[in-house]
Amino acid sequence: MTDVVAIDGDVQDLLFRAARTANTFTDEPVSDEQVRAVYELVKWAPTAMNIQPLRVVLVRSPRRANVSWNHMSEGNKAKTSTAPLVAVLAGDSGFHEHIPHVYPPRAAARENLAEVPEVRARMATFNGALQVGYFIVGVRAAGLAAGPMGGFDAEAVAKEFFPGGGHQVLAVVNIGKPGPDAWRPRNPRLDYDQVVTTV
Amino acid sequence: MTDVVAIDGDVQDLLFRAARTANTFTDEPVSDEQVRAVYELVKWAPTAMNIQPLRVVLVRSPRRANVSWNHMSEGNKAKTSTAPLVAVLAGDSGFHEHIPHVYPPRAAARENLAEVPEVRARMATFNGALQVGYFIVGVRAAGLAAGPMGGFDAEAVAKEFFPGGGHQVLAVVNIGKPGPDAWRPRNPRLDYDQVVTTV
Repeated sequence: MTDVVAIDGDVQDLLFRAARTANTFTDEPVSDEQVRAVYELVKWAPTAMNIQPLRVVLVRSPRRANVSWNHMSEGNKAKTSTAPLVAVLAGDSGFHEHIPHVYPPRAAARENLAEVPEVRARMATFNGALQVGYFIVGVRAAGLAAGPMGGFDAEAVAKEFFPGGGHQVLAVVNIGKPGPDAWRPRNPRLDYDQVVTTV
Repeated sequence: MTDVVAIDGDVQDLLFRAARTANTFTDEPVSDEQVRAVYELVKWAPTAMNIQPLRVVLVRSPRRANVSWNHMSEGNKAKTSTAPLVAVLAGDSGFHEHIPHVYPPRAAARENLAEVPEVRARMATFNGALQVGYFIVGVRAAGLAAGPMGGFDAEAVAKEFFPGGGHQVLAVVNIGKPGPDAWRPRNPRLDYDQVVTTV
């Protein structure tokens, strides 16, 4: 199986097979340079009309002293308070302002989309989710462990980190080097035949 | 920048930097073994509660003679009719049936989610979108070009390929080796500082 894939087995392990959601982290900091490298890599992955609605707020340890993380669900509070870096990932419904720059073939979509906030919200959430997927792979490509979480009060987290409004928080991702007992037992994946059909 | 990332520059190129949405394809077929290898790799990437709602229908050339692709938007028809393989990607709102198997810590969620179809639809779309992102990266990891498309009549495509209902079609992806003039000009990406903020 492995040799059908064009990338080496150890890269396959790093990005997918051996990559796991980390639940504890060491104190080793994650540098700005590392996060920038992740972004400069994954920014190239595709979104519809190249809209790129993902926005990221990075929360570093000094500031974390002032963040209660009370809006995270119970099981996510402790690990989020101790990760060296927490990334709050959101979809920005104001993405249309950038369209003339990022998608010149349809520059007029900026005006058309300005009229339909619900359509924009849906596009921001869907394409933002694609980019969350790319971002998680990118964190792993940087040799870091990612702990993506969906258990939080999305409105409260949006209010704290995107006070200007218009953002849907999609995921909160703890990032760092895995600490002791970082992994829970791995849960099973669906079989190929449960997922893929050929017609 | 490049050497902060733990994977080689040529792998970074293959998966992200040099990877492009292909608009034409050669006749070279994509084998079942290749698609299986992609799935067996990307199935490990994370979803909330490990729900894995992505479902894939593969449409191969012989059958394509009987698929009109009239439900694709105008600019997507020709390339979809000539790709050696087309993958129709959907989120399955019936994912909760698998929860006792894929997420034993919360087996009871199967019953709770059975009551709330709107919540399931939202979870299937969001987590399905994450998996669409992983799938695109996986196709590229197999050395194949992917042409993901969002321009189609989602209800009509769902009716044709998921006639049982309960599926939201998220993307249609052409897959193969790039043909002549496969690439359009690359559109710009947002700068790091437009996307990432540190608090």
